[in-house]
Amino acid sequence: MLFFTQCFGAVLDLIHLRFQHYKAKRVFSAAGQLVCVVNPTHSLKYAPTRCAAAQASTEQGILPPCHHHEVVHDPQLVPCTCPLFSCPWEGHLELVVSHLRQTHRINILQGAEIVFLATDMHLPAPTDWIIMHSCLGHQFLLVLRKQEKYEGHPQFFATMMLIGTPTQANNFTYRLELNRNQRRLKWEATPRSILECVDSVISDGDCLVLNTSLAQLFSDNGSLAIGIAITTSKVHSSEAEM
Amino acid sequence: MLFFTQCFGAVLDLIHLRFQHYKAKRVFSAAGQLVCVVNPTHSLKYAPTRCAAAQASTEQGILPPCHHHEVVHDPQLVPCTCPLFSCPWEGHLELVVSHLRQTHRINILQGAEIVFLATDMHLPAPTDWIIMHSCLGHQFLLVLRKQEKYEGHPQFFATMMLIGTPTQANNFTYRLELNRNQRRLKWEATPRSILECVDSVISDGDCLVLNTSLAQLFSDNGSLAIGIAITTSKVHSSEAEM
Repeated sequence: MLFFTQCFGAVLDLIHLRFQHYKAKRVFSAAGQLVCVVNPTHSLKYAPTRCAAAQASTEQGILPPCHHHEVVHDPQLVPCTCPLFSCPWEGHLELVVSHLRQTHRINILQGAEIVFLATDMHLPAPTDWIIMHSCLGHQFLLVLRKQEKYEGHPQFFATMMLIGTPTQANNFTYRLELNRNQRRLKWEATPRSILECVDSVISDGDCLVLNTSLAQLFSDNGSLAIGIAITTSKVHSSEAEM
Repeated sequence: MLFFTQCFGAVLDLIHLRFQHYKAKRVFSAAGQLVCVVNPTHSLKYAPTRCAAAQASTEQGILPPCHHHEVVHDPQLVPCTCPLFSCPWEGHLELVVSHLRQTHRINILQGAEIVFLATDMHLPAPTDWIIMHSCLGHQFLLVLRKQEKYEGHPQFFATMMLIGTPTQANNFTYRLELNRNQRRLKWEATPRSILECVDSVISDGDCLVLNTSLAQLFSDNGSLAIGIAITTSKVHSSEAEM
């Protein structure tokens, strides 16, 4: 009799687990969007003042390479733009994507609208979540960073960079969207060019910024789902044509 | 000859000024929306720990009056909900609007969609910008607050409260939208009831939060324009009907 009761309990547990799995899957694959689970990476080269000089030169209208201490002799060569690692690589802009995929193992996803599911949001700062997104004939780099701008108060910063020139970046608009617990937060902006250094975009705060409390409201089981969409910005296109 | 040249210069200046004025007006009255210029008020009763006890009772499922140190003997009476001043008034919920208008001189605006134009964003924290918004048969209180949650780093917090009960508040969704410099930020949520204390909503960070740098990107000449829209949330209405 006890054996049958235990068997019945096990079957009930299996049904419950199956339902939980179905529920989780349904939440993140609504509207047939591609969901990409992105695991965190503890940034190995993070230093808060790294981009101070780069930022100064941006203000003077010069586009700095991220590794501003390295002299780039050929103006057509760009340094490695991976926000995670100090890397001596430099090469043509067209080779950046294959370098990031092959050397830094950053995933690339296809699709106009995707969901970026960042796991383990509780990990201490500095932590980065990174993927590449291929869309409208271009490649974009999405960076979510947990960083302590004010000591003891980590915040989340999310931005999208075009792996291309600033002129090309002006032709696009990206949208990041959080939607949970009867709350919705949307950020829309023109992507920056990867030549502009992701660290300075984040230190300027010119991106989606989330306090820890708001990030917790939007996250589910320690994971934060960010809907991403990229469109061509018609105003810019027509301005460029003029 | 010099006189005529000077006269011509003055006429040109006048035309330029007229054009600038027209441009400024056009920006803030796009789509026929009502624009309300809201001047700041330096909060007289601000104390960071004021709502700690109130928050604790909310977590226990009890709705606290904002002035939790005052004992409200009649459960039908609510204290003054004005976030600006310590005020001994208490009365029925239906009388809160007229009290806020008459005693605290808070303006009330009609319309489904309005633009809240907060002036003098540079003023030091703590500062509040407040209006009431009459829409869909109810009155809402919009509070924009500049506050230093982390010392030396002021942030802006914007939220909308229903002057009504939490059950009534569940029937609505409010949207706050910032749109400038090719950037757009939207926050959508269910309004909280005014009985829940605006200070605890802000200290929880469960509202639109802006860092100073982002507030500067969205502001024009020291003023921040926030588009406001309120709708009935059908999901909640149907849930309430069940």
